[in-house]
Amino acid sequence: MSQFHSDRLCIIGVGLIGGSLARALRQAGTVNELIGCGRSVDNLQKAVDLGVIDRFELDAAAAVQAADMVILATPVSHTADLYRQIAPHLDKAAVVTDVGSTKGSVIADIESVMGQLPVHFVAAHPVAGTEQSGVEASFPELFHERRVIITPTETTNAQALERVIAMWTVVGAVISQMSAEHHDEVLAATSHMPHLLAYGLVDTLATMEERRELFSYAAGGFRDFTRIASSSPEMWADIVFANRDALLPVLQKYLQDMQSIQGIVEAGDKEALLQLFRRAKTERDRFASLVGRFVKPGDSE
Amino acid sequence: MSQFHSDRLCIIGVGLIGGSLARALRQAGTVNELIGCGRSVDNLQKAVDLGVIDRFELDAAAAVQAADMVILATPVSHTADLYRQIAPHLDKAAVVTDVGSTKGSVIADIESVMGQLPVHFVAAHPVAGTEQSGVEASFPELFHERRVIITPTETTNAQALERVIAMWTVVGAVISQMSAEHHDEVLAATSHMPHLLAYGLVDTLATMEERRELFSYAAGGFRDFTRIASSSPEMWADIVFANRDALLPVLQKYLQDMQSIQGIVEAGDKEALLQLFRRAKTERDRFASLVGRFVKPGDSE
Repeated sequence: MSQFHSDRLCIIGVGLIGGSLARALRQAGTVNELIGCGRSVDNLQKAVDLGVIDRFELDAAAAVQAADMVILATPVSHTADLYRQIAPHLDKAAVVTDVGSTKGSVIADIESVMGQLPVHFVAAHPVAGTEQSGVEASFPELFHERRVIITPTETTNAQALERVIAMWTVVGAVISQMSAEHHDEVLAATSHMPHLLAYGLVDTLATMEERRELFSYAAGGFRDFTRIASSSPEMWADIVFANRDALLPVLQKYLQDMQSIQGIVEAGDKEALLQLFRRAKTERDRFASLVGRFVKPGDSE
Repeated sequence: MSQFHSDRLCIIGVGLIGGSLARALRQAGTVNELIGCGRSVDNLQKAVDLGVIDRFELDAAAAVQAADMVILATPVSHTADLYRQIAPHLDKAAVVTDVGSTKGSVIADIESVMGQLPVHFVAAHPVAGTEQSGVEASFPELFHERRVIITPTETTNAQALERVIAMWTVVGAVISQMSAEHHDEVLAATSHMPHLLAYGLVDTLATMEERRELFSYAAGGFRDFTRIASSSPEMWADIVFANRDALLPVLQKYLQDMQSIQGIVEAGDKEALLQLFRRAKTERDRFASLVGRFVKPGDSE
C-alpha cells in the first residue's frame, strides 16, 4: 500500500471528526497544506489558533481550489448542497471522501446532484467519536485502532479508493469494506438504535414529575447507558432521518421484543426472563472480547 | 453522629457488595470480627484467603450467633427464606440491615415471615456496583462518595437506624432517606429500566441473522450502552420481579414514548425529533453536572 501524501488537503467541517483527522494527518507529517472550511469564523479561527489547520475559507468553492484531497465532514444532511457548491471547482484529479455515519443517503444525495456518482468520490465512515462536538474536543488519536468502513461502488476509481485507504491507515485506523446498504443496516443496529433509545429514556424520565429527584439518584449504570444522549441533537436527528429505511425495521423488532419482555414480566415468568438475560449476557461478554481483539495493533481485516 | 463499631459483624452473601463492604469496614478498623456466610465454600474460602472476612459459616443460623450487626447481601428473592433461618438465632440487640436493590419487596418478605417488621431491621440500598460479580471483584472504595438510600418505616428503632447510617458513613457513602415505595419508583426509572433495555437490545441483535458481524462493528456508544447487560442475569431477573409493580408503569410509559418516536421518524418530522433530542440532551447534561456535585466529599443531603 502506498504511503499517503497530499499537497493541499481541504476539510469541510472542522469539528470533532474533521478536526481530529486534521490533527492526526498533521502529526503524521503527510500533508503540506491543510485548508479548513465551515460556517463559523470563530470555530475556524480557533482551529487555526490551535494549529489544527493552516488557513480557512468560508466559501466551499474557494476552499477546494487546487486541493488534491477533499474531506466532507459536515452533517450528512448538508451533502447535496455542499456537493453542488464544490463540484464545478474540484480539481479533475481530486479525491473526495466523507466521514458521514450513513452511507446510502450520502451516495444518493451526491448522485442526485451529479446525475451519477463521481468515480473519484469514495464514501467512508470512521466508526469513532465521543459525545463531544467541536474542534476543541478533537484529538489526533481519535481514529487509532478504530474501524473505518469504506463503501466503494462498482464505479469507484481504484486509485481514489487506495488513496482513501492510505489516508485512514496513516492515522492508525483499521479498514473494512462493505456495501453502503450493508453498512447502513449494521450501523442502524449497533449505533443509531442505542442513540435513539438513550435519548428516548432520558426524555421519558425528563417528562416524569419527579425528574429532578430521579436524576439525582441515578448511578453508574444510568450514566453509561445515557452518555450518548449528550451527543449533538442536530447531528443525530440528521442521522436518524438519513438512515430511516434501515433504522425503522430494527426499531420495530426491538419494540416487539420489548413488548414480549413486558409480557414476560407481567406474567411473572421468571425462567423466561432469566433465559433471555443469560443469552444477552453471553453475547455482550462475547462482544467485550471482540472489542479487545479487533482493536489490537496489526489486527487485519 | 456516633462512630461505627462492631464486635462481631456477620455478612450473609460475600459477593461484590458484601465483600466490598467487608473490605471497607476492615480498612476503617471498626470491626473486631467479621463472619461471612454463603452457600459456596470455594467463594467463602477465597474471601478468607483474600483477608475479606475472618472466618465463615455455611449455616446462616450459626453465622449470626452473637453478632451485633448482620448484613443481608444475598439476592433479594432469598430474603424470606433467609430471615426465617436467622430470626430465632439473632441477638436481641442485633441490628439487621440489607443491601438489596428493591426495598418494598424486602420489607414485605420479612413482614410475611415475622408477622411485622422487626424494629431492629433497617432496609438500605447502596446505589453502587459494577457489572462484575463475586468476592474477587470486590474492593473497599466501592461505596466511596456513592449514595446509600435508607428506607426506615414508622416503627424502625432510632438507634438501629443511627447505627446503619454510621456504618455507611464510615465507608464513605452519602446517605439519603426516603420511603421504600418512593425508592422503588426512583430506582425502577433510573436503574432497573436501563438494565432491562440494555439486555433487551443485546438480545434483539443476538437474534438477528448477522449477529456476529453486528457485534464486530459495534463501537464505543454500543459498548457503554450495553455494559450493564454483562451484569448477573440471576440478580437482575430477581430485581425485575421484586420491583415489578414500580417497573411496569415506567416500562409502559417508555414503550409508548418510543412508539411516538417511531411515529415521528416514520412521518419524517425532523423538527419534532430535534426538539426531543435537545430536551433529552439538556437533561442528560444537567444529570452529568449533578453527578459531579453529589459525589463531592462533604456534600450533605
